[in-house]
Amino acid sequence: MAGYSITKDEHLKRLRRIEGQVRGLQSMIDDDVYCVDVLTQIASVTKALQSVGLGLLDEHIRHCVRDAAEESDEAGDAKVEEAIVAVARLLKS
Amino acid sequence: MAGYSITKDEHLKRLRRIEGQVRGLQSMIDDDVYCVDVLTQIASVTKALQSVGLGLLDEHIRHCVRDAAEESDEAGDAKVEEAIVAVARLLKS
Amino acid sequence: MAGYSITKDEHLKRLRRIEGQVRGLQSMIDDDVYCVDVLTQIASVTKALQSVGLGLLDEHIRHCVRDAAEESDEAGDAKVEEAIVAVARLLKS
Amino acid sequence: MAGYSITKDEHLKRLRRIEGQVRGLQSMIDDDVYCVDVLTQIASVTKALQSVGLGLLDEHIRHCVRDAAEESDEAGDAKVEEAIVAVARLLKS
Repeated sequence: MAGYSITKDEHLKRLRRIEGQVRGLQSMIDDDVYCVDVLTQIASVTKALQSVGLGLLDEHIRHCVRDAAEESDEAGDAKVEEAIVAVARLLKS
Repeated sequence: MAGYSITKDEHLKRLRRIEGQVRGLQSMIDDDVYCVDVLTQIASVTKALQSVGLGLLDEHIRHCVRDAAEESDEAGDAKVEEAIVAVARLLKS
Repeated sequence: MAGYSITKDEHLKRLRRIEGQVRGLQSMIDDDVYCVDVLTQIASVTKALQSVGLGLLDEHIRHCVRDAAEESDEAGDAKVEEAIVAVARLLKS
Repeated sequence: MAGYSITKDEHLKRLRRIEGQVRGLQSMIDDDVYCVDVLTQIASVTKALQSVGLGLLDEHIRHCVRDAAEESDEAGDAKVEEAIVAVARLLKS
């Protein structure tokens, strides 16, 4: 269940790996790799990005929402709405 | 920004509408409606279901997470993890 | 790899099961079942709907695209575009 | 409706832009940009990747499926199955 909550360094490490994967996609296209294999790799990069997104969402709820809620109910509610709008965007992407 | 936070009655109303849409899908299949039109309708029902999901997630963060966090940090953390796992499931569905 | 290509009866059977699941969601809301459990069930219904969608897409490519392509290249291209637009809608739903 | 069918150069141009966006995400994390803003950007990069995927799927159906179908029905069917499995992977990513 843990694993979504990650440190800044871990985020950066994951994003550097994703950057490498996107460069790999360019080589695949350049080398005319079979399109279904490129699609499989795209699905894998998308999944890696979503996973970084879940880590950030975890942080947002764990820290921003709670800290704001300690200030006032309204501040907490505003942070919850931001979280939900962010999840809606992830779902539609 | 609001609109995700909805009442129990509103949830039920939406789900009854979705049930009607799923029955409509059966009629479409039964009447051999053109498959792309059925696919468009499936995308619309899926979107409606996700929207109910976002409403429930809103409630979970707004109430369960906060109430638990007031009890103890550990209780709050456990509810956050549940929320993230639920979002991960929605993303993969 | 097969399993996506299904018959009309199989589509109807799956949609009736999905209809039952949507009714089940209403009972869950009515009985105030814990929201994360409802979310898990919503993810499962969404997955079932997507699976019906993949079956229809399979049919569309297997039959409509090919039949049209035998008529003319333009007719085939038009059906491919419809397929891609349908997949784009599924991805965004 | 067009726009999904793109050339190799266009694919590469899009992927280079996506690579730049992933580097941008690293800077956002490094500069402690507000997590909801990073999430919004992640949704945008994911959408761009999905769009490249739809372009590849368009090509696959337009060319690979048809060419194979001209050879034999079995060859065509095999390519359709690959396409559907690829879409299923995109949906789950």
